[in-house]
Amino acid sequence: MKVKGKNWVKAEDVARLAGVSRSAVSRTFTPGASVAEKTRAKVMHAAEQLGYQVNIIARTMNTGSSNFIGIITAGFDNPFRSKLLSPLVNQLAVHGFMPLLMNADDPDQLAPSLKQLLSYHVAGVIITSGAPPLLLAEEYLERKIPVTLINRHADLAGCDRVASDNQQGMQLMVDYCRQKGWSNIGFIGEDLSNFSTSERYSALTSLTPDLSVSARFITGGGYAAGRAASIELSHCQALLCATDMLALGAMDGLRSLGSETPLPAVIGFDDIPQADWDPYNLTTVQQDTEGLAQQAVDLLVTRIARFDLPSRHRAVPVKLIVRNSA
Amino acid sequence: MKVKGKNWVKAEDVARLAGVSRSAVSRTFTPGASVAEKTRAKVMHAAEQLGYQVNIIARTMNTGSSNFIGIITAGFDNPFRSKLLSPLVNQLAVHGFMPLLMNADDPDQLAPSLKQLLSYHVAGVIITSGAPPLLLAEEYLERKIPVTLINRHADLAGCDRVASDNQQGMQLMVDYCRQKGWSNIGFIGEDLSNFSTSERYSALTSLTPDLSVSARFITGGGYAAGRAASIELSHCQALLCATDMLALGAMDGLRSLGSETPLPAVIGFDDIPQADWDPYNLTTVQQDTEGLAQQAVDLLVTRIARFDLPSRHRAVPVKLIVRNSA
Repeated sequence: MKVKGKNWVKAEDVARLAGVSRSAVSRTFTPGASVAEKTRAKVMHAAEQLGYQVNIIARTMNTGSSNFIGIITAGFDNPFRSKLLSPLVNQLAVHGFMPLLMNADDPDQLAPSLKQLLSYHVAGVIITSGAPPLLLAEEYLERKIPVTLINRHADLAGCDRVASDNQQGMQLMVDYCRQKGWSNIGFIGEDLSNFSTSERYSALTSLTPDLSVSARFITGGGYAAGRAASIELSHCQALLCATDMLALGAMDGLRSLGSETPLPAVIGFDDIPQADWDPYNLTTVQQDTEGLAQQAVDLLVTRIARFDLPSRHRAVPVKLIVRNSA
Repeated sequence: MKVKGKNWVKAEDVARLAGVSRSAVSRTFTPGASVAEKTRAKVMHAAEQLGYQVNIIARTMNTGSSNFIGIITAGFDNPFRSKLLSPLVNQLAVHGFMPLLMNADDPDQLAPSLKQLLSYHVAGVIITSGAPPLLLAEEYLERKIPVTLINRHADLAGCDRVASDNQQGMQLMVDYCRQKGWSNIGFIGEDLSNFSTSERYSALTSLTPDLSVSARFITGGGYAAGRAASIELSHCQALLCATDMLALGAMDGLRSLGSETPLPAVIGFDDIPQADWDPYNLTTVQQDTEGLAQQAVDLLVTRIARFDLPSRHRAVPVKLIVRNSA
């Protein structure tokens, strides 16, 4: 591969310096390929001296399979999604995959971006919560490109998904409320088209036929939404929130009412770093971001190896972190 | 390009359906290439019907230049860096570039990761604050791969950098202190090997020969560091912090001392979303993340076009956002 003006070291250069064939260099850098130990040593030594790097673009052309994985996510500034991104990138690297990050913040840019991803012949796609309509996943599946969803729902053949165990999470919250003797419960969520809100709310209602539950759903969620909703629900004994951002806003909303009113307890869902800050000390259901990332990448990797597996769904256990807010 | 098991549509398929030559398809999808309007229309229609996508991997092989840009950053869970990531990804997309995100959180993984990036024949690299030693930038520059630094310093030929105007930012802070009559100032920063801390601290000392300045530097920075340092500096009238995370921690540290003590004012630097939350209402110097991203990508794009430009440095203006903390 010639690159005008760029000083790329070529496999030929390594072969010449090592005094071996071009194919010996290629075999040395192909996982699992056979090459004599002495030859391999010569090649590695020459490669080191020249600063040679395998050309992945050329390898992709030759083998027909890329190691790119599209990660489609919205809202990098959402602390939970940022917290998930790190282990996801790391887990992909463990399997030799390189993430291509698509920002789904701008709905107008979304469809062209997803089409663009196809241009890179991605080996698979991970779609996270807060990301776009799932119709777009079908375009990938039609091309036999595996799709894994994190904290989302879809009934698409060949589509795997992993989610935190929302039933368990709500059970933990409700058990805690019962233990405290709280029977007048408020719930704050994003709108019901949001997977996490919808699963958590329906788990809550299934678990509390005997309790009074008032709910508020606010499109987009976030701190300001939680702040506003909490004021309307200040008559409750406990506010269960679908996300930590909603919960932190709720705590500040309640505080803004002044200290004469007895304030409801607040419980969140996520365990973002801010939950632990002094003014909040939020009791929350912790999502295992390492576990979610590991399961998502495992599902994707196994389906890349064999596309025609039945759809799989894995639930990752959560735990209740008790702090001072409840 | 044949991909086993994958249903990639090939340029040949489009040519066949459109009744034109393979080369007409290729010209239609090459920016600036000449093709008759009628032919282009036929090709676009057939491409749409078949769901054809340009094969960027093949184009990279053919033209020898990739459209990958490495973004090397540490700490996705740092709210300022997350806030910068979105406009950076968007600006790169405007220029037709695809970011390859490298996580520099794990120092042991860093050198191999950076070498791996070379395997993708990246067209350029952006290194952000909080990321790794700059020795690694030299590896790229030696290969004539442009490097742009954001909020970092380097004296490397061919390396461009963009940073928030730290001198202006500290001037704004100091003017504000003088206006309020505060002459006993505390400064909290990361350690002095950190570019932003070092520039901001030296600007501060140059601006305040007549004031008393006490400083604390804590490796790694962050909320807990700011919290601890603020307690040691509680005798000051104002605490100027090198980042918002330090400032938010500082506010909570001061509050933990109890309300009998008169508390110093606190001013941050960044304007992360949490600065605006009720318990903080942080007065802070706002960095223009859109501006930083735009300038960084502009520097990179112009140097990709012409590698032998002299090194450039651009300062992006900041502004003081006055809230309640000072």
